[in-house]
Amino acid sequence: MMGDSFEASKKRSDEIRADLSVNPGKYCMLTGDRPTGRLHLGHYFGTIRERVALQNLGVTSRIIIADYQVITDRDTTANIQDNVYNMVIDYLACGIDPEKTIIFTHSQVPALNQLMLPFLSLCTEAELERNPTVKSEQEASGHALTGLLLTYPVHQACDILFCKGNIVPVGKDQLPHIEQTRQIARRFNERYGHVFPEPEGLLTDAVLIPGLDGRKMSKSYGNAISLAATAEETAKLIKKSQTDSERFITFDPDNRPGVSALITTASLCTGRGEQEIAEEIGNGGSGQLKKYVTESVNDFLAPIRERRVELMGDMDYVKDVLREGNRRANEIANQTLEEVREAMGMVY
Amino acid sequence: MMGDSFEASKKRSDEIRADLSVNPGKYCMLTGDRPTGRLHLGHYFGTIRERVALQNLGVTSRIIIADYQVITDRDTTANIQDNVYNMVIDYLACGIDPEKTIIFTHSQVPALNQLMLPFLSLCTEAELERNPTVKSEQEASGHALTGLLLTYPVHQACDILFCKGNIVPVGKDQLPHIEQTRQIARRFNERYGHVFPEPEGLLTDAVLIPGLDGRKMSKSYGNAISLAATAEETAKLIKKSQTDSERFITFDPDNRPGVSALITTASLCTGRGEQEIAEEIGNGGSGQLKKYVTESVNDFLAPIRERRVELMGDMDYVKDVLREGNRRANEIANQTLEEVREAMGMVY
Repeated sequence: MMGDSFEASKKRSDEIRADLSVNPGKYCMLTGDRPTGRLHLGHYFGTIRERVALQNLGVTSRIIIADYQVITDRDTTANIQDNVYNMVIDYLACGIDPEKTIIFTHSQVPALNQLMLPFLSLCTEAELERNPTVKSEQEASGHALTGLLLTYPVHQACDILFCKGNIVPVGKDQLPHIEQTRQIARRFNERYGHVFPEPEGLLTDAVLIPGLDGRKMSKSYGNAISLAATAEETAKLIKKSQTDSERFITFDPDNRPGVSALITTASLCTGRGEQEIAEEIGNGGSGQLKKYVTESVNDFLAPIRERRVELMGDMDYVKDVLREGNRRANEIANQTLEEVREAMGMVY
Repeated sequence: MMGDSFEASKKRSDEIRADLSVNPGKYCMLTGDRPTGRLHLGHYFGTIRERVALQNLGVTSRIIIADYQVITDRDTTANIQDNVYNMVIDYLACGIDPEKTIIFTHSQVPALNQLMLPFLSLCTEAELERNPTVKSEQEASGHALTGLLLTYPVHQACDILFCKGNIVPVGKDQLPHIEQTRQIARRFNERYGHVFPEPEGLLTDAVLIPGLDGRKMSKSYGNAISLAATAEETAKLIKKSQTDSERFITFDPDNRPGVSALITTASLCTGRGEQEIAEEIGNGGSGQLKKYVTESVNDFLAPIRERRVELMGDMDYVKDVLREGNRRANEIANQTLEEVREAMGMVY
């Protein structure tokens, strides 16, 4: 969008990726999710798995549950508490370790949100309007563009910079957000003195896990396997997924999206190659394919689901994890806000 | 701008004004200033005098020193600390009583600023762009429209609503801001349950004190008598003010802006009528007029300036006033934010 080319971003991302296991202590990762529903396999293979790996590598890790982002394009916060707690449960069940990773929510960290004020002064309206993701999200929502959606890349800059995050796992389409954050950090430092790093997008090697129909996996398409679903619900969902009339199974995403999505799902869950799976099923047809996918998914998710059930039975612990995460996030945010006030001379 | 006509606003304002001395306890006033320089006579007769009167009537009073608003249209916070402390001194010297009125700054009250997030979700971009004051301020500044200037009416809504202010002294041109705040309060209450009052603009009986050249009194025109100026500086400023070649003094703002501005200034400081002053000077010419104005202003400001000097010699007290004001503002803001979180279900 502004300044950097994709190639430059990709190059820096690759360099960081190579350095991560050598110097994990140099990096602070900020990432997060909107708590609008349960996490599904798409989230797991798209981001959660990588977060766990980075955490375990020794990278400083912070995960934000972006509760205020729920209202960028909707008029209600219905079920927000339930969604937030379940998100914490999903994280923990997947291997996020609250001793290593701070899990927190927007709404509980005022000093983070306060950064909106100085940061908004560092952007022009024209720059806000130029963000392509904001436009496409607004169009997808069918709502009028709210002030919160318009300024959400600035709020995301607050999320990243409050903890001086210097890497943010992103897809290519989110690079404009990172560029906007870099610009805000740069302008702040130029005007008031150095406080913030210029974070880099850590481009994820796009494991695009398709939904059961071959489209993007999304709760709203009804094509997503939720981590929280039971084995039976999973079996049912896979059973009713659309394949095609050709019996012999081949992996061909362009011409056979349904069949191929099922194969990819099994491949991700088993670690086996897609061709290998397709050949093994061969004449077994979609019935046998679905049986294999169901087993693969349920076997893979079994330990996560077991841990989920345990955590559901210990909500005091889950709440404590979030409370402690919010406490630590506040500590960091207050410290950063103090530095920001000093840099700006707002010390009274 | 949106909804209410001027007449409706004026009618409600008049009703409140009539009720203020009867039921002062029903009202909470929020008002404030941008700390970009020293307060001058225009501020005093335009707003400060009324604030003191309302405070002394028993109206709950909060005054915000809007330090973040300094950067809506400029790239620097130079002298901000000095400007803020001097603003506190000006307030105290003019009769604001910190036992009765909370004086505080934006930057020190995170929970107030956090309200930006839910409130931004309650406005559309189109509504933000429609605010006429934002447009004219941007044009006057000669800068590109920053995100902070664009969203500043929302931030003003945070200022008013964090303490559940229900009256805001305003000029007619600021009514669109009040309307935007009312709309935000109304929408929040509709979506999440009743938390906020819908504040009313308290229209000030426009005492338009002109600058020494007849234009609006403003530091940037060099036509303003600062409360902090010495008697000598005041004399010098009045001496070099532009009058006209006609010796005989008359009060005629349209045709004799310079002479008339001087008469109005003396009138405000002495409480005497403008015609009366003009007639008294008559053939004395602008020399005698300036002498009279200088005496009137310096006599009027003498006790304020004396108190200013005392306060300058007791900066520990001044800082304590602001710190205690910030502490109390934080208490109120934290309480309101807690109510907002509960209404929105963001309780974890």
